[in-house]
Order: sequence, then structure tokens, then C-alpha cells
Amino acid sequence: MRSLEAKRTRREQRLVVLEGEDLVDAGLAAGLMPVALLVDEDRVPADDPRLRATAAVDERYAVAGELLAKVSSLGHAARMIGVFPQPPVRDFRTVPMPPALALWLAGVGDPGNVGTLIRTAAALGCDWVGLGPGSADPFGPKAVRAAMGATFSVPILEGVRGEDLATREGVRVVAAVVAGCVPPWEADLATPCIIALGAERSGLGAALGALGSCEVVRVTIPQDPGAESLNVAAAGAILLAEARRQRSQR
Amino acid sequence: MRSLEAKRTRREQRLVVLEGEDLVDAGLAAGLMPVALLVDEDRVPADDPRLRATAAVDERYAVAGELLAKVSSLGHAARMIGVFPQPPVRDFRTVPMPPALALWLAGVGDPGNVGTLIRTAAALGCDWVGLGPGSADPFGPKAVRAAMGATFSVPILEGVRGEDLATREGVRVVAAVVAGCVPPWEADLATPCIIALGAERSGLGAALGALGSCEVVRVTIPQDPGAESLNVAAAGAILLAEARRQRSQR
Repeated sequence: MRSLEAKRTRREQRLVVLEGEDLVDAGLAAGLMPVALLVDEDRVPADDPRLRATAAVDERYAVAGELLAKVSSLGHAARMIGVFPQPPVRDFRTVPMPPALALWLAGVGDPGNVGTLIRTAAALGCDWVGLGPGSADPFGPKAVRAAMGATFSVPILEGVRGEDLATREGVRVVAAVVAGCVPPWEADLATPCIIALGAERSGLGAALGALGSCEVVRVTIPQDPGAESLNVAAAGAILLAEARRQRSQR
Repeated sequence: MRSLEAKRTRREQRLVVLEGEDLVDAGLAAGLMPVALLVDEDRVPADDPRLRATAAVDERYAVAGELLAKVSSLGHAARMIGVFPQPPVRDFRTVPMPPALALWLAGVGDPGNVGTLIRTAAALGCDWVGLGPGSADPFGPKAVRAAMGATFSVPILEGVRGEDLATREGVRVVAAVVAGCVPPWEADLATPCIIALGAERSGLGAALGALGSCEVVRVTIPQDPGAESLNVAAAGAILLAEARRQRSQR
């Protein structure tokens, strides 16, 4: 479990560590079986439903709370930590296009933001979340915690570059830019589109250039003059909700 | 500085620790002068503008990077850490009512969410952010970092209870509830209102009961069936942006 703190190890082994009953429940609900499960011998009763569900798992141990604390990434260790396979990798080239609504993160580096955006995308009906180069690992501990189980309820596509989007027919991108464009409610977010968000500081710049002949609609969430820009997860929530609003009113 | 890791000490002394040039800049831009400032002797040049701005500060030291790392709350220590006075306390009873647009957090316990919501409120034009009992300290390190300087650009009112809102004339509350109410775009968010958000798990329940005779409009952000609820900071961003959209179209 400690070795899975390293992104490289998680990727090579295609594993994700889920801490706490809620996330273990989310993994089980997605039909995944842990390859290993540690439970606190003093705090998890023998009739816990997760123990029944994982009875066939070889690497399952009831251990002392101190041991759980040592492998936990949290200040207060969970009662239960599972190592699960990552959801199956979806190849971007095989995903139906265009999506009705999807989210593309081009270089969102903060894992908490990536996880929150995955959660928001799942709640607001995205077909998938695509992650471009420079985005945080969606299967790291902070991202998984922020996603609150949504890691398993919306398809996550990795390594999606602007060039990849440009090769597909009918792709329409609505790109959030910090200043100077129309408000999202004056753009068409009802027609199928991919909402694109860039890095917190540098924005979408280079990623948009790679979109080639795709239709790109730039929108700016109006803000008070002089205010710091919105957090990228807040901007994503606003755009996805606006798409939903426009679609509900057609 | 280490003693200010404790909320009680921060509150008693009305101090806030700002790590990094960006936050120190935000404190200075708000007209606040640090009571103490540590700068990395190797990484901050003698002509740094923040050193000029704080020349009159007695407790200002150029120190070894290792010492900064010891007092930092971050994995990678900032080049500069300042201890600033908290912005002046605003008494809720003296704030003009009703606000055009304000945000009331009734028991939002996660400091990252409180900070993100303060940042969003500042960007989207709230008159103030009111924090009810059970909300995280807006001046703790995680909240200050998530707010990205907005801690100083929007008034923060502490200890605002439902009972307090109920005593003021003309208060109109738009409350986010998880299920069963109209979408925000079918409610009136153009008329002056206070957007109310509750705890991530338990919601607004008891806080709404205390609002007495205030006008309360309950709204639900429509979600996909079976999806986990939205993060509270995402929900707040959606409602504040919707208020802005409705007001831009009057």
C-alpha cells in the first residue's frame, strides 16, 4: 500500500487505494473486487457487509489500528483501506463522438480540483471526463477522496490531447477563458459539447491551439473587476450547470 | 507562528498566517501590516518589494530555509511567511440589510470548502460571507490558501446564526437543498437574497428552522439519478453564478 503512494507504481500496476467505508462501498458498487483489504480489528465488526462482499479476497487482514494509521494518507486513519483495480482504461479513439456533454481537463494539476471536477461531472451528467497532459492523477489519494466515489461512476479517459479531439468528427468545444469573451449564458451550451478547462494559472492557451478545425466557443464567467479568478473546479461546476439549464429549457 | 496552528490561539490573538508571496501581497494590498515576517535568506532578494513595504516591521527576519520549512504548513515551504492581523471583525447587526447578494455558510466544516467559497463569493460579487456555528475557521491555513487572497477582499462575518438572520428586516434566503425542490433557474435569484449552504452531509435542516418568518426559497440543483451529491463549494458556485445570470438579464 505504501508503494502505491507513488503515481508511477499506481499506473504500472493499475491500482487505486480506497480509504474508508464510503470509498470501499463505491469500489464494490462499481463491481470491482479489491486485491487487498485491511480492516481495523477493533473497529470493524465481523458481520460488516463489506467483509461478506470480499470473503473471496485472499489478501484480507484484520489488523491493529496503528498499522492502518501507518499506511493511511489521512490524519485520522479510516477503519478500512482497500486496494482496488483501477476502472478499465477507455481508449479515447473508441469513445462515441461527439458526446452529449463531456468535460476535458487540459493540465489541471491540483489533485483535489481533478477529484472535485470528476464528482461534479458525474452529478451533472457528463458522458466522460478526459484528462490532458499535465493533469493530476485521478487515482491518487487526494483526487479519489475529493471525487467521493464518482471515480467509478463516470468514465475517465487519460492522455486526451487537443490533437486527439481535433481528429474526431463533430467535436464542439466550449472553452472557459479568464477574460474577454461572452458569458456562458450567451453562448450555446445546449448543443452537444465538450467543456474545456485549463491550468489554474496558465489557462487553456496552448491546448486550444491544438484543436485545429474543431468548433471552439470561448466563454468567460463574468466576475467583479479586480477579483482573483475563480477556482477551476468552481468554473467547471458553473459551466456544467449552465449546460444543464439550457438543455432543460429547450 | 507554530502556536497559531491552533484555532483558539488564532482567534484570541486575531492573527492569520500567510504563506507565500501571493498571500503576503494580498494582505499588504488590503492595507494590513504584518506583525512578523520571515523570509528565506537565500531565496528572497534584498530589493524584494515586500521588504520595502514592510521596512517598519520590527519582527522581520531573514532566516535559513530549514527554519521556514519548520514553521510552514506546506509540503514545500514558501519563500516568505507573514503573520498578519485578521481583517476587522464586522458585527452582523451593523451590516446593511438586506444585502444585494450574500453567502451564508451554516456549518460548512471543511476549511478548503470554506476558503473556496470565500474566493467564489469575492469573484462573483457577494456583499459578504457569513459563517454560522460549526463552520471551519476562515483564517486557518487551508482556508486561507483556498481563498487565494479573497480573505481580504470580501467582508467575512462570523457567528451568524439563523436566529440572527431572522431578526433583520427584509431578509430573503435562497437555500440549497439536496433533493425535491425547484431548479435554481426556476426560482427568483435576481431579487436581493442570501444564498444559504449547509453541512456537506447533514445539509441545512436545523439552520433553516431557525429562520422564523424570513422568506425562504428552497432550490435543488438537478442531478443525475443515483449520483452522489455535489460538493458544497460546487453548489455555491452554481447558485452564485445563476444569481449573476438572472441579474444580467433583467
